[in-house]
Amino acid sequence: MEALVQRLLQGERRALARLLTYVENEVEGVEAALAALFPHTGKAWVIGITGAPGTGKSSLVNALAKAFREREKTIAIIAVDPTSPFTGGAILGDRIRMRDLSGDDGVFIRSMATRGSLGGLARATRDAIRVMDAAGFDIILVETVGAGQSEVDIVRTAHTTLVVEAPGLGDDVQAIKAGILEIADVLVVNKADRPGALNTVKSLNAMLRMGHPASRTQLVAHHGRLLEVEALTSNTHEAMWIPPIVQTVAIEGKGIDKLLDAIHKHREHLQQDNLFAALERTHIEVELYERLREALLANLLRNISQDAIQTLIQRIQTRELDPQGAVQELLQTQQMKA
Amino acid sequence: MEALVQRLLQGERRALARLLTYVENEVEGVEAALAALFPHTGKAWVIGITGAPGTGKSSLVNALAKAFREREKTIAIIAVDPTSPFTGGAILGDRIRMRDLSGDDGVFIRSMATRGSLGGLARATRDAIRVMDAAGFDIILVETVGAGQSEVDIVRTAHTTLVVEAPGLGDDVQAIKAGILEIADVLVVNKADRPGALNTVKSLNAMLRMGHPASRTQLVAHHGRLLEVEALTSNTHEAMWIPPIVQTVAIEGKGIDKLLDAIHKHREHLQQDNLFAALERTHIEVELYERLREALLANLLRNISQDAIQTLIQRIQTRELDPQGAVQELLQTQQMKA
Repeated sequence: MEALVQRLLQGERRALARLLTYVENEVEGVEAALAALFPHTGKAWVIGITGAPGTGKSSLVNALAKAFREREKTIAIIAVDPTSPFTGGAILGDRIRMRDLSGDDGVFIRSMATRGSLGGLARATRDAIRVMDAAGFDIILVETVGAGQSEVDIVRTAHTTLVVEAPGLGDDVQAIKAGILEIADVLVVNKADRPGALNTVKSLNAMLRMGHPASRTQLVAHHGRLLEVEALTSNTHEAMWIPPIVQTVAIEGKGIDKLLDAIHKHREHLQQDNLFAALERTHIEVELYERLREALLANLLRNISQDAIQTLIQRIQTRELDPQGAVQELLQTQQMKA
Repeated sequence: MEALVQRLLQGERRALARLLTYVENEVEGVEAALAALFPHTGKAWVIGITGAPGTGKSSLVNALAKAFREREKTIAIIAVDPTSPFTGGAILGDRIRMRDLSGDDGVFIRSMATRGSLGGLARATRDAIRVMDAAGFDIILVETVGAGQSEVDIVRTAHTTLVVEAPGLGDDVQAIKAGILEIADVLVVNKADRPGALNTVKSLNAMLRMGHPASRTQLVAHHGRLLEVEALTSNTHEAMWIPPIVQTVAIEGKGIDKLLDAIHKHREHLQQDNLFAALERTHIEVELYERLREALLANLLRNISQDAIQTLIQRIQTRELDPQGAVQELLQTQQMKA
């Protein structure tokens, strides 16, 4: 594992691919590798891209990658598919992209789908981002399908989040927009050559103006739970960031320069007033508490037999004991053993 | 709180509404109320309904509720909207339903959206189901929008899960289907009077036949992480459940009888061979470990100052310490204090 870390730091692509596989499969020893890589992280700019199916996210990621390459930036792409534990919707998208971007050492593409443990995907994505960061990529693009909470959690590890919309995607697109507008740093209306594009822009604009700027939120971590609070921007000097709306036709490369400008401006915005440091601190706090929960549970389970747990589950099932009561019993057993 | 529990058990609707508000807002003392209610739970049949926006889930839930009422069953409905932390997409759907179902004491409708803490929604939904179960409802319908992991987690507290599709919802509907097909106990093609309905049925059928029955999964809990394993059905006596596909036109009430039949058959299937007991045991195990994680973290934080934590975060941010190293330091501090 140590040799692998060294080879990765020297820029070897095969070492990178292997470490990512270890991260995804939670191979033993990968924690040590991640610890060794950690001092080399913190340099990459992480861009999250999310939006409903049909908005053309993959093409947009493709176009963004090409544009960044033209500007001499190295790019890593993680395509995350939380909807599919087995089949890889992401894999198809990958193949298409590969055609365009393959043979370029400055681009690295990886897709991830849930494998086995649910909820492990966000964690695996976070670790994969870290490995890519240590490998020296300038930009990391994290693409995720859909607009549910898990996708939101995944893009929340990003520095700049793009929410992608497209014209004419059906009735309750509005509802989704309302839900993910809050996490958008930049709004992208892709497929902007389609009928209805202007309407989509207008309605996004209306939503941003009506109420939404007021409910622009700040992520804070409190005891390891992410809380959303109203951004304290009205009474501080800190300039408020209003998400710009950028129209693109990704498959033709149209609007991509403007999108890059918007991303760049958002980055500048974060880098002033210590906003970036605050964002990073929140990410770290959330991760720390999450790791603590898992470590504490593992400790407890080392001292308590599976039989004892199964007996408790049995007693809950017969309604003799309630779940919180079972937790109290387990904590008392642990204290007595300590 | 005790009086409230008694009033709820006597069937008072206002007590139910208030307790649900307490659950949603995690009011102090609500844990004790849930513990007191727990012995009265385990009687309701919980039906999860999920599917992409535009499939007509709300109308379907409405039609199902009416059909169950005609069969003298009492119904509670929870409409969960994980996409929206602020605005209630669910609330609009509620109002529409209210018109149809209001004035009937055998129906109770509640919508829930994320409030503050992310990830708390699945927990709040689980507790709300329990409160409704204790209140004596025969059937609990849990409706959730979308097809992301969080929605999957929410419907996984159900006994029977309906996945709703509709014809003509755009390009990558296929990808979503592949992702949530595994959790479906019954597949519903709603809006079946629209062009393309037969194609939707055919492609679902093809997916069920090609590979998907082979990858039908069983949920198992292992150390509190849900794992998906291939169902061990080939070499056991246990009959395999192949999700039936039911066509409906919910707004006209068409196909609802057949849907009720399918739900009934699934219930019979679970009740043979102890499948239901196994499902319940898995739900309990997951809940127990989740509660343990939170309780252990709360214990730790009682002994460690926020200053100490902030210092650790600072050291992680400067890359002096990696996150896992910080966890080790905290655990050692705790051991020394014990």
